[in-house]
Amino acid sequence: MASDTLLRRLRTEIATIPLVDSHSHVPGPSPTARSLDDILGYHYYTELAHSSGMPKDCLDASFNPQERCRTLLGWLPKLANTAQHSWFVQICRDHLGFTGNQPDRSDANYLWNTAQSVFNAPGWEQELWQRTNLEMIFLTNDFDDPLTGFDTSRYIPCLRTDDLVFHFHKPEVRERLAKATGIDRTDAIGVREAVGRLFQHFLAKGARACAISLPPDFSPQPVSLSAFDRALQSAEAGNPDCVNGLFWLLAEFCRDYHLPFDLMIGVNRRVYEDGVFQGQDLFDRRTSLLQFRRLFNNFPTVTFPVSVLDGAQNQELASHAWIFPNVIAHGHWWYANIPGIITRDLRERLQAAPLCKLVGYYSDAYKLEFVLPKFTMFRNILAKVLAEDLVEPGYMSEEQAIAAAQGLLNGNARQIFRRHS
Amino acid sequence: MASDTLLRRLRTEIATIPLVDSHSHVPGPSPTARSLDDILGYHYYTELAHSSGMPKDCLDASFNPQERCRTLLGWLPKLANTAQHSWFVQICRDHLGFTGNQPDRSDANYLWNTAQSVFNAPGWEQELWQRTNLEMIFLTNDFDDPLTGFDTSRYIPCLRTDDLVFHFHKPEVRERLAKATGIDRTDAIGVREAVGRLFQHFLAKGARACAISLPPDFSPQPVSLSAFDRALQSAEAGNPDCVNGLFWLLAEFCRDYHLPFDLMIGVNRRVYEDGVFQGQDLFDRRTSLLQFRRLFNNFPTVTFPVSVLDGAQNQELASHAWIFPNVIAHGHWWYANIPGIITRDLRERLQAAPLCKLVGYYSDAYKLEFVLPKFTMFRNILAKVLAEDLVEPGYMSEEQAIAAAQGLLNGNARQIFRRHS
Amino acid sequence: MASDTLLRRLRTEIATIPLVDSHSHVPGPSPTARSLDDILGYHYYTELAHSSGMPKDCLDASFNPQERCRTLLGWLPKLANTAQHSWFVQICRDHLGFTGNQPDRSDANYLWNTAQSVFNAPGWEQELWQRTNLEMIFLTNDFDDPLTGFDTSRYIPCLRTDDLVFHFHKPEVRERLAKATGIDRTDAIGVREAVGRLFQHFLAKGARACAISLPPDFSPQPVSLSAFDRALQSAEAGNPDCVNGLFWLLAEFCRDYHLPFDLMIGVNRRVYEDGVFQGQDLFDRRTSLLQFRRLFNNFPTVTFPVSVLDGAQNQELASHAWIFPNVIAHGHWWYANIPGIITRDLRERLQAAPLCKLVGYYSDAYKLEFVLPKFTMFRNILAKVLAEDLVEPGYMSEEQAIAAAQGLLNGNARQIFRRHS
Repeated sequence: MASDTLLRRLRTEIATIPLVDSHSHVPGPSPTARSLDDILGYHYYTELAHSSGMPKDCLDASFNPQERCRTLLGWLPKLANTAQHSWFVQICRDHLGFTGNQPDRSDANYLWNTAQSVFNAPGWEQELWQRTNLEMIFLTNDFDDPLTGFDTSRYIPCLRTDDLVFHFHKPEVRERLAKATGIDRTDAIGVREAVGRLFQHFLAKGARACAISLPPDFSPQPVSLSAFDRALQSAEAGNPDCVNGLFWLLAEFCRDYHLPFDLMIGVNRRVYEDGVFQGQDLFDRRTSLLQFRRLFNNFPTVTFPVSVLDGAQNQELASHAWIFPNVIAHGHWWYANIPGIITRDLRERLQAAPLCKLVGYYSDAYKLEFVLPKFTMFRNILAKVLAEDLVEPGYMSEEQAIAAAQGLLNGNARQIFRRHS
Repeated sequence: MASDTLLRRLRTEIATIPLVDSHSHVPGPSPTARSLDDILGYHYYTELAHSSGMPKDCLDASFNPQERCRTLLGWLPKLANTAQHSWFVQICRDHLGFTGNQPDRSDANYLWNTAQSVFNAPGWEQELWQRTNLEMIFLTNDFDDPLTGFDTSRYIPCLRTDDLVFHFHKPEVRERLAKATGIDRTDAIGVREAVGRLFQHFLAKGARACAISLPPDFSPQPVSLSAFDRALQSAEAGNPDCVNGLFWLLAEFCRDYHLPFDLMIGVNRRVYEDGVFQGQDLFDRRTSLLQFRRLFNNFPTVTFPVSVLDGAQNQELASHAWIFPNVIAHGHWWYANIPGIITRDLRERLQAAPLCKLVGYYSDAYKLEFVLPKFTMFRNILAKVLAEDLVEPGYMSEEQAIAAAQGLLNGNARQIFRRHS
Repeated sequence: MASDTLLRRLRTEIATIPLVDSHSHVPGPSPTARSLDDILGYHYYTELAHSSGMPKDCLDASFNPQERCRTLLGWLPKLANTAQHSWFVQICRDHLGFTGNQPDRSDANYLWNTAQSVFNAPGWEQELWQRTNLEMIFLTNDFDDPLTGFDTSRYIPCLRTDDLVFHFHKPEVRERLAKATGIDRTDAIGVREAVGRLFQHFLAKGARACAISLPPDFSPQPVSLSAFDRALQSAEAGNPDCVNGLFWLLAEFCRDYHLPFDLMIGVNRRVYEDGVFQGQDLFDRRTSLLQFRRLFNNFPTVTFPVSVLDGAQNQELASHAWIFPNVIAHGHWWYANIPGIITRDLRERLQAAPLCKLVGYYSDAYKLEFVLPKFTMFRNILAKVLAEDLVEPGYMSEEQAIAAAQGLLNGNARQIFRRHS
């Protein structure tokens, strides 16, 4: 067990490392919360409250936002045991002057009003960047995003491609592609040209990754040009030649344009059909990284930062990062983003794979306010693991451990996503 | 790390919480042991001794029970490292005046004789309830159990349905159903009527759950009436239309009669064909809760307390409880019921899902004597997890943590199984 | 948490237990390193360095060995966080007078020269046996190994059968078998006779196990004589009747000759096609021990020491060892051989299965120098688990815990592999 003083010193030092947040859903033009509703409307709270018994009617767009917050605050004590709850409490404490540990309905007016004034004060965005000690944050941008209205040196664009790959059979997706690129074709050559335009547009705006989330049964394979051609005409959902052809095309462009290809592996969409918005997806542990064997071999120059949804797949990820030069173990995603799972997964990665093959954490946040509490959770775990596994047994000095933390929180992401300082 | 004094205070407080034991195999009319043979005959000891090399002949019904205990005690030191062994030692210490830590053959006479007098003393059952601080315990009742001979306010009947669903092709099961209900039909309408009678009988006796254990490859689906009708006539084992039709019928009755439907997921029967009685079953980790997607969506008003046999499936369970309002994470079952796995699984559930979606523990005991040592094991883990994860980091006060423990050990089960105090 | 003084006492005592190393790749006639290149050439270092970015050209046989070591030392700081790195550091400290914690290029000459003189000093092998406190070590011998040039009372031969089972379709394997046995036949009767000769040869030389590594999708089944006969003529890779027939034949000979059959379950070969030598294999977690149900039932008198490659399969292994008398949980293999995974897996095995069903650890080493640092890693974990799980809660005295350690490190392997002292 690490001594308390060692732990305290490591925590203090690690807190000074500026953060590179390599994956988020923060909207570039509107990155911070405008009201408490932007905080409590995070799907973590709506789905946990709903799972605890909260009817969904308060989540309707027409529902009064302040009343929605009051309702949600009424359910929060039922989930005061969760890690997600601790993030909200930290936001309330850090920015809203709250001093308790279990906010509830009785705090609704205070929190609402304070949030109104704090979040809408001039300079809040810059203030928050400083409080968070944030250096840059990666966004999630639709393929037809104009990428305007924000500073792309701090808000790094990422080309998110789920729609292209998994919903190309839908007329609206084809129309969006035509509109974004000026190329209105659905033959293989034409689609390749259009997708190439997307990459050029994103690169011109400083994009540093292409990203996609994948279902557990996906196993990418190349498709012949003729089969791809035929499949692109199809209106059938999930046509394998269409999905594989488009995915493989993206990998080829990542190779040609030197972009890392973020793979977020394992999500089944709409499993709980009647769930709240963004609270319907789950996973299936019957999946393996072996399904990506052909991809990893075919694109040795493409870096694949990989996230897995099931923590029990972590050893596969650590082992792939151990031998494949182009596989990076990337953060702790969604259902695996809780302290118990992070601790185990981080420990196993640090013990098995070279440090440079690991990106410690990303926030996955929808609003900048969540970056700080989520990274705080991670940094506490990181300090503990470094102390117990590396400093106390004498494998690293404290200085070396802090350098390792710097890599995990900043340097490795800069290197991998080519944002050298 | 939690300080020793905090841990001690939490343990002391948690020990005062009366227990609701939401799943056991205790026989209502004969709940306590009558001899040491009832304790050492528990399949955990017979299978571990057999696995260590003990021939099976001493387990024959005709073998002298006292000699059987002597034989088993001779093998026990070989498994003194196991959690299961610690339960036996606690029983010997708590009730039989034993003071050592590794009972063996030389203790056979003492333990046998003491057990004879203690277990057969007048009032032993009541004494044991008090020592155990037990409030109620759920049973496992065959569908044709008359449910007489015990106090159903403390021994709560549960309708166990494995035979109905997985052995309906056997003439003896159909005969038992006909005899129990007075309805001797094997057409879909007739079977529905008969099963309805079972529910009415069980409800009249205070049953609070329908329960079933399921193999890893089971994925429930509705069946058309005509296909179900045809399948019910079949004498084929495992006919999918028959199994699915009967299972779906049970879910419908659970919905209509407001009964929780306990799912115990993942057991393969008779894997070790030559194993001891009840020591032949194992599991297959190639299974997912996704297989229950349709069930959970189709029956939003039915509560499903779910147990999984493979601890590596715990994240799936915690994540389902996190978003599905009708999925409850239920205890720690069988091969996953050891401290290392419980600690990890409990931690992940508490960090991820609302407290009200968790039932902390059940004993799965065959005799009341095992409720106390098993719950003691769990309470020690619970105190540790609450101290380390919630009290020490400041997310909960000690008082709040004790209230959480109360929910996990008593209140949540009362709420979920509708046995409000 | 175990107190520091208890931990220290246990470590001291456990360090005095002589080791039985039940699986290694040490070559009998040349067991120790002759140069630093034999140490740094271990695939763990070449693959981790390559994964960190090291080009493969320095691994060419024609590359100057001292320069190769210099190159590898240049990459080592990138993996200073790993468990594998800690083994190298311990070798440098224990035998080469190194005192730092992160050897790098600047240490290349010193380490090379010191290794030259230490490893080539007269009596190094015996000195290393003493420093390691080693009693015997099991080898991995090709089926056509003459088994000469080493002392088979300390270097125990093992019949490794991957080539026979999975490469029998290759002419060179058939030729090797013909040459080794003098039987040049590919009909079922002839092959059985030839394999029988192999067993006789190995037994005459003191072999104590037959061993094989298996892919995740393998599920052994018996094959009819006629189907086996036909399949043996086939030049097709992976013909199931050929693979199953040969595997089943080995199990039969293990039964007839009372040899344990080591199963190393879960490796996919050549997943990373362009990886370094021995750094190309991975695994697929979609596998289950249930696939071996028929084997374990059919050969009750054959002992199967089982290793699994995916730590998340550990509960399956512990549960099989819990009920099957002939299944042994055997060490911590390859990708699962890191402290985080070992700690969890060891804990779960000790809590669930009889002590006599567990072999604590084997080195899997290619050179004797690695036995000590790998076992040191394991012994530290073992001391911690025994202290926390068994001594501190009062389930075992320190003396009993040390006896348990003796079983895990020495006695159980002697018993299981019939090398009684």
